[in-house]
Amino acid sequence: MKAVQYREIGAAPQVVSVPDPEPGPGQVLLRVDAAGVCHSDIAVMSWPAESFPYGLPLTLGHEGAGTVAALGAGVTGLAEGDPVAVYAPQGCGRCPKCAQGKENYCLRAAELGIFPPGLGAPGAMAEYLLIDDARHLLPLQGLDPVTSVPLTDAGLTPYHAIKRSLPKLTPGTTAVVIGVGGLGHVAVQLLRALTPSRVIALDVAEDKLALARAVGAHETVVSDEHAADRVRELTGGQGAEAVFDFVGAQPTVAAAGAVAAVEADVSVVGLGGGALPVGIGTTAFDVAVAAPYWGSRGELGEVLQLARDGAVEVHVETFGLDEAPLAYERLHAGKINGRAVVLPHA
Amino acid sequence: MKAVQYREIGAAPQVVSVPDPEPGPGQVLLRVDAAGVCHSDIAVMSWPAESFPYGLPLTLGHEGAGTVAALGAGVTGLAEGDPVAVYAPQGCGRCPKCAQGKENYCLRAAELGIFPPGLGAPGAMAEYLLIDDARHLLPLQGLDPVTSVPLTDAGLTPYHAIKRSLPKLTPGTTAVVIGVGGLGHVAVQLLRALTPSRVIALDVAEDKLALARAVGAHETVVSDEHAADRVRELTGGQGAEAVFDFVGAQPTVAAAGAVAAVEADVSVVGLGGGALPVGIGTTAFDVAVAAPYWGSRGELGEVLQLARDGAVEVHVETFGLDEAPLAYERLHAGKINGRAVVLPHA
Amino acid sequence: MKAVQYREIGAAPQVVSVPDPEPGPGQVLLRVDAAGVCHSDIAVMSWPAESFPYGLPLTLGHEGAGTVAALGAGVTGLAEGDPVAVYAPQGCGRCPKCAQGKENYCLRAAELGIFPPGLGAPGAMAEYLLIDDARHLLPLQGLDPVTSVPLTDAGLTPYHAIKRSLPKLTPGTTAVVIGVGGLGHVAVQLLRALTPSRVIALDVAEDKLALARAVGAHETVVSDEHAADRVRELTGGQGAEAVFDFVGAQPTVAAAGAVAAVEADVSVVGLGGGALPVGIGTTAFDVAVAAPYWGSRGELGEVLQLARDGAVEVHVETFGLDEAPLAYERLHAGKINGRAVVLPHA
Amino acid sequence: MKAVQYREIGAAPQVVSVPDPEPGPGQVLLRVDAAGVCHSDIAVMSWPAESFPYGLPLTLGHEGAGTVAALGAGVTGLAEGDPVAVYAPQGCGRCPKCAQGKENYCLRAAELGIFPPGLGAPGAMAEYLLIDDARHLLPLQGLDPVTSVPLTDAGLTPYHAIKRSLPKLTPGTTAVVIGVGGLGHVAVQLLRALTPSRVIALDVAEDKLALARAVGAHETVVSDEHAADRVRELTGGQGAEAVFDFVGAQPTVAAAGAVAAVEADVSVVGLGGGALPVGIGTTAFDVAVAAPYWGSRGELGEVLQLARDGAVEVHVETFGLDEAPLAYERLHAGKINGRAVVLPHA
Repeated sequence: MKAVQYREIGAAPQVVSVPDPEPGPGQVLLRVDAAGVCHSDIAVMSWPAESFPYGLPLTLGHEGAGTVAALGAGVTGLAEGDPVAVYAPQGCGRCPKCAQGKENYCLRAAELGIFPPGLGAPGAMAEYLLIDDARHLLPLQGLDPVTSVPLTDAGLTPYHAIKRSLPKLTPGTTAVVIGVGGLGHVAVQLLRALTPSRVIALDVAEDKLALARAVGAHETVVSDEHAADRVRELTGGQGAEAVFDFVGAQPTVAAAGAVAAVEADVSVVGLGGGALPVGIGTTAFDVAVAAPYWGSRGELGEVLQLARDGAVEVHVETFGLDEAPLAYERLHAGKINGRAVVLPHA
Repeated sequence: MKAVQYREIGAAPQVVSVPDPEPGPGQVLLRVDAAGVCHSDIAVMSWPAESFPYGLPLTLGHEGAGTVAALGAGVTGLAEGDPVAVYAPQGCGRCPKCAQGKENYCLRAAELGIFPPGLGAPGAMAEYLLIDDARHLLPLQGLDPVTSVPLTDAGLTPYHAIKRSLPKLTPGTTAVVIGVGGLGHVAVQLLRALTPSRVIALDVAEDKLALARAVGAHETVVSDEHAADRVRELTGGQGAEAVFDFVGAQPTVAAAGAVAAVEADVSVVGLGGGALPVGIGTTAFDVAVAAPYWGSRGELGEVLQLARDGAVEVHVETFGLDEAPLAYERLHAGKINGRAVVLPHA
Repeated sequence: MKAVQYREIGAAPQVVSVPDPEPGPGQVLLRVDAAGVCHSDIAVMSWPAESFPYGLPLTLGHEGAGTVAALGAGVTGLAEGDPVAVYAPQGCGRCPKCAQGKENYCLRAAELGIFPPGLGAPGAMAEYLLIDDARHLLPLQGLDPVTSVPLTDAGLTPYHAIKRSLPKLTPGTTAVVIGVGGLGHVAVQLLRALTPSRVIALDVAEDKLALARAVGAHETVVSDEHAADRVRELTGGQGAEAVFDFVGAQPTVAAAGAVAAVEADVSVVGLGGGALPVGIGTTAFDVAVAAPYWGSRGELGEVLQLARDGAVEVHVETFGLDEAPLAYERLHAGKINGRAVVLPHA
Repeated sequence: MKAVQYREIGAAPQVVSVPDPEPGPGQVLLRVDAAGVCHSDIAVMSWPAESFPYGLPLTLGHEGAGTVAALGAGVTGLAEGDPVAVYAPQGCGRCPKCAQGKENYCLRAAELGIFPPGLGAPGAMAEYLLIDDARHLLPLQGLDPVTSVPLTDAGLTPYHAIKRSLPKLTPGTTAVVIGVGGLGHVAVQLLRALTPSRVIALDVAEDKLALARAVGAHETVVSDEHAADRVRELTGGQGAEAVFDFVGAQPTVAAAGAVAAVEADVSVVGLGGGALPVGIGTTAFDVAVAAPYWGSRGELGEVLQLARDGAVEVHVETFGLDEAPLAYERLHAGKINGRAVVLPHA
């Protein structure tokens, strides 16, 4: 079958031919109908050889959706032809975190050498994908695999961050979204669907702010050196009760800290390399700052349900498998509007 | 192998010879070192034919612990010889409840015909037990299978009920335990380990109250028609912030309701057939009454950890496999002190 | 000044002349701009003499909003002319419940003889109302006193009940509202503003169901003996994760229990005298049934904020003070659409 | 009356004579039986004139306990002679935070010029103290004012920080306390009373570690450059689920971050001026770092209750009012064992 692989440090991904995978006992073979193209793949491909954590070649793609093509021995509860989405941040399934479905925080994944598809294990950017356990497949139940595949990361990651803050997002509060890209434009929709809060979106680009307004942001603010002051103004001086930074660069985390109200949550989600110093006087009292990662199995089910209910919608741009390298190029150049999705069988 | 089976409605369980089970793909064969004898088995064996929900013969035993004897194809993360406890209230593993580890509340178990070992599926009261998925086995990590096997039900069930109420059991509050049997004497210990609350235990039998004091109850009250008044007195008229009824008969649920303070929790756990009417004026304001069932996978891990830490200890009386029918007889007659445990290989 | 009083057991309320109140130290005198007419007043006026808990005559009105008219000695943080709403379920201010703002559950109110205005203490259905402490007055901040006065009970009571259930009202869940009257039609709006859940409303009257749809219910079901089956159907057999019964009669609480899913919440709010029996087998596992009462100070602030944000709106019908007896008559006859509000200075 | 005042920037506090306060309407006059001596006073007295936020002279003392001496007009629910403790971080009483009893996070205190006694307003280190509202006085109910006065800050502050983390401190988890001084030695006791977690205490001084063991720490670790590694070892590599830093210097916050497990809480409580950078890769996933301040009214009630139950005990060293300057000197020199308490009437 054909697969999109990162084969050499620093080189562009290539479309190559690899052996067709076959499901062993307990495994499931998935025909991939859609695979998401993510900024973090670009980050991965920028890492130097000495700190590169995965083996090469690596089939890319950690967002996947498709159709069950074959079941390994002993698999129950699934049938060939079932349309499913892939829960990628998989863990051991048995440690205390996994026992609650928080496989993204598996305590034994590193020790056992468990990696997500596309981030260490062979990924979804191929005609077929081997899944180790049926529990990692969630039923699409009517969702379009193309528009919903980004929900497995670009939807799940902000959902997980937002879910932590729901108890703080009571009537009269404000939520700030920094960076209205793939994750941020979903975050705005999630906040509108899940909370009564006022949503303020920040971005450097006016077209991103227009997108934020189109998907429900109450206010938008240009992300410059006056942004924090502007958010304070908009909140009567109190600041925001939750801030989600999908950029994560030093200037944005600083802004996130500056606009956080007493007892607020700040989530640093973006891989921009920034860090917000937390101490007496550096942030308001009891502002809880955390850097979350992806989400749980149960949370993915909830995100998919929101899409079924029409509460969240991802803007996608599609590419054939052979065009995947081009999709990465365009994403890198900032030319993708919403999320790029590769269709291996198109 | 030998197994203890309930074979005919109304008859006593028998020790019989059945074929040795063999693990298929994804399954695990467990050599059973200990199996708990539970009151609910006696309830099951009292049900009439027309409402009996399981097929016969039924190998009994829903509390099991043992040693991994063989792995089916595709099983990873376990090795032969591993000492483990069985999480019995298993579900489909994929529905929204199971995705959070709440397999006890699986939304698809009935539809898929999934039953716990000993309660529909072949149980632990045999030399070997077949487990459908490795996720249902928790590492004992040094725990004695004999004294810890009751934790899988008699520990997990009260733990789950208590966990709901922890936010209400702040300093200065009172927790009431009704019925100091297998579950109740563990509940007292759990409350002491997990909360700063005062624990009041109720039972009709003085020796049970003595056991309650021995395992940490601050106060004991004879469970008669004055019990509710006595608890009100002991709490300065306010009542208790959490009540756990392990009897569940009509008089005990009535007492549970009568002693519940404003905003308290009442958990009806025992199978005594009682029901507490909840409405304006029948219970204090915002008393939340629920009838929980068993517990989640994650909670079982937490209970086992408490045992490792010495915070909870089950009193057990042991029997050989051939003596299992006798154990049930003695339990029925109220002659078991703590929990009866069958040792299939003793 | 003029006041609407209940003066004799069984008699209709009368408009009478009473001395003008004057604020002592720490007290606030309120010019009443609007006072809500509530079903519970009718319940109060139906109680027999032997169980009547308050002194007579009793000035009615436990929903009040108005303008600060005078400040007693030592009152700070308020000024004459401030428009405010009254938090009526007031407590001692110092017990553990009051220290969290849950004055509706004050542990010492009975002992200290503290009653809400209109329910024991002189109420809001008068030209002026004496408030014991400035903390019981919340700023209207632009809200119209007439349309927002019902929020102090008809808004706060469902808000408090719903707030308990928010953690259970995740995507894909269902909330059921039984009884689309004064409280129920607000509850539908609150559920839409605060949750992503599907809202199903039940009522016996088709015009109430039409109102439910107009304020946002996704589905409406006639509240007859098939209602529970219909809700089960609409939820794919699973039932609802939260049920709010604003009628509280025996048939409605039975329906509430019948449609409650595993781990659901059921809130019995209405004063219909029903009670739902909770036990193993009578309700689904871990359904938490409670009968809440009014709400906390903080919650009232949140409800008012939702009104400011346009997320909740109360349908009102206004009456002059002299017409208050008529308003009660019409309410009793089921002829009020939404909520009746008395304007003492109109 | 006599009072201990900070009168001049940089000078030592002095015992002076000031006019006797008299309670106005709504106020309460307290005869001070005990006042705590706190490190933060020393911090305050080290601030330069240009950033000094309070007026001078300032009567010191933000921990107070005593006896009600006189009631202003309109005060109810208190009587002369009542023994009480002072809730010092007082707020406006009416904003959304205050409405939940979180006066320590009052949204209007700065605007309204409200300061805690001893930190802006006249403090407890005097023969009498004026209290603005009865809600700030909690009944001692049998507690000794001398040993319990430190609970109002040295008890309440760690209690508030710990309370946030209770849901994470499940069986099998670890809590780390950094700095076993006035607050830290209470924190160890609180963690033992409220959680089943293993408690590891860090300090630079061996006698402080001995105190930690005496009050219940399971393990103690010298706080040097190897401390984080040692904690990782003690936790099987996973780290601690909650870390409380009562020093707050840069090396201790760095250690706090280094030992925090996935999804842990870190609370920076000490005024040491450090700040922990939070971002992807700087702390483990979803570690929530916050800098809390004091606690709520409800929480103070809970701390006092724990003392009544014998679950927490403060080591105190007493001084007369004239010796207060000496007490500060000795505290500054690190010569106070536990907490210094001034007895104004001794």
